[in-house]
Amino acid sequence: MRPKLQEAYEAVKRALECVHFCILIANCEVKYWGRASSKLGRGQRVIMLKQDGSVLVHRPYGYEPVNWQPPGSRLSAELKDGKLVVRAVRLRPWEELVVEVYEVHLLAHCKLRDDARFEMYGSEGDIRDLLANNPELIEKGLKRVEVERKVEGGSIDILFIDERGRLVVVEVKRGTAGAEAVIQLKKYVERLKGELGRDVRGILVAEDLARGVRGLLVREGLEFKKIDLRKLFEVSKEQGASLTHWLTRC
Amino acid sequence: MRPKLQEAYEAVKRALECVHFCILIANCEVKYWGRASSKLGRGQRVIMLKQDGSVLVHRPYGYEPVNWQPPGSRLSAELKDGKLVVRAVRLRPWEELVVEVYEVHLLAHCKLRDDARFEMYGSEGDIRDLLANNPELIEKGLKRVEVERKVEGGSIDILFIDERGRLVVVEVKRGTAGAEAVIQLKKYVERLKGELGRDVRGILVAEDLARGVRGLLVREGLEFKKIDLRKLFEVSKEQGASLTHWLTRC
Repeated sequence: MRPKLQEAYEAVKRALECVHFCILIANCEVKYWGRASSKLGRGQRVIMLKQDGSVLVHRPYGYEPVNWQPPGSRLSAELKDGKLVVRAVRLRPWEELVVEVYEVHLLAHCKLRDDARFEMYGSEGDIRDLLANNPELIEKGLKRVEVERKVEGGSIDILFIDERGRLVVVEVKRGTAGAEAVIQLKKYVERLKGELGRDVRGILVAEDLARGVRGLLVREGLEFKKIDLRKLFEVSKEQGASLTHWLTRC
Repeated sequence: MRPKLQEAYEAVKRALECVHFCILIANCEVKYWGRASSKLGRGQRVIMLKQDGSVLVHRPYGYEPVNWQPPGSRLSAELKDGKLVVRAVRLRPWEELVVEVYEVHLLAHCKLRDDARFEMYGSEGDIRDLLANNPELIEKGLKRVEVERKVEGGSIDILFIDERGRLVVVEVKRGTAGAEAVIQLKKYVERLKGELGRDVRGILVAEDLARGVRGLLVREGLEFKKIDLRKLFEVSKEQGASLTHWLTRC
């Protein structure tokens, strides 16, 4: 099943017209012009043209695509100089990805249906440990002082020191943080101020803040930092972070 | 061409035995356990099992995989409860990705050959502008003061202020930086010290440092920061950074 270039061209054109997912395994060259430019000589790769205009070129190894374009790119195909040329152009900022196909080993296109929700689970302890190891995800220049610092009536999730040398109490909540989280954070900030006699900031870190709670937070002089759980765990995955404990298998 | 699960199972097993690249388009569920855990309900996706043990699960949209495992993961397949179960396990840290396949729409596997070198081009000006906008790639807590600051005898690529309030002169070189780059940086650092009467740091940023130059750099009290051009431009691509100028098309 090795479609000739003419057939492959017609199939890609049809796939683009029908807004189908299209996948090719092909011997190709890849060129890119944008902020920088890149060139990848001939080799066998997988090319994915997605239904939303995103494009990925994958080599036989590595988890990252060698070249890619984001959703919304303008895709086109043409036969030129004996090659099938697939082009993906992003307009702002201008970026152009050109795949010059010499031989197609496999080509398939179809409408893929996928409406499932991606659900992510992680404990507050997991989030706390990740943030303790990656404070830049909260704010640039934070330096960790202590994790789970005991104060009267509880323990502070993470204590940092900021760029200007001020202590920062971070309270981590999984999901949407409510008024209770704000009150708890305020309590820790006040206790630490009393204990040390220095200025102390308080940041509530959560996936979201409940409606009507922002006013309370601001009045108490506290701050809120929204986190994307997905991105947080991706960062840790890419770092191959060493783990302090495991989540038990569901 | 919709292989039944038994056939698909045998094909995947064969692909893994032969260390082939294997691609499936399938109706599946995806589960992951590691630092966090995740679950993705049934839907049609592309699953790539690469020759180096990396695995990617792609939905019909978005440029990022919904789940992935890095190279070196242990791959296996089994038929269980009427499903084809593909498993990718990373040992350190422990991470387990399980794809439960209900229906296979397409399956192909083959040895892909791809030895081409990925070449990246970008001018020193491009690198300088990217670093000026992403100082954390050089050092956490750097704040930009000025790009191309004029000093006697030339101009400083980027002038930053560090977390402790010290001025930092950054000299950017494309490729491997040699002794001349060190001498030039030293000159700018000295000129700025003389001009302002304050302590000034100097960091040479390049893809590599020529052999035997590190000694000179250290003796002059300067620092070196290695950059990965590929990663640098990927960061800018993900940010959709606004561009100050374009590279002309080759």
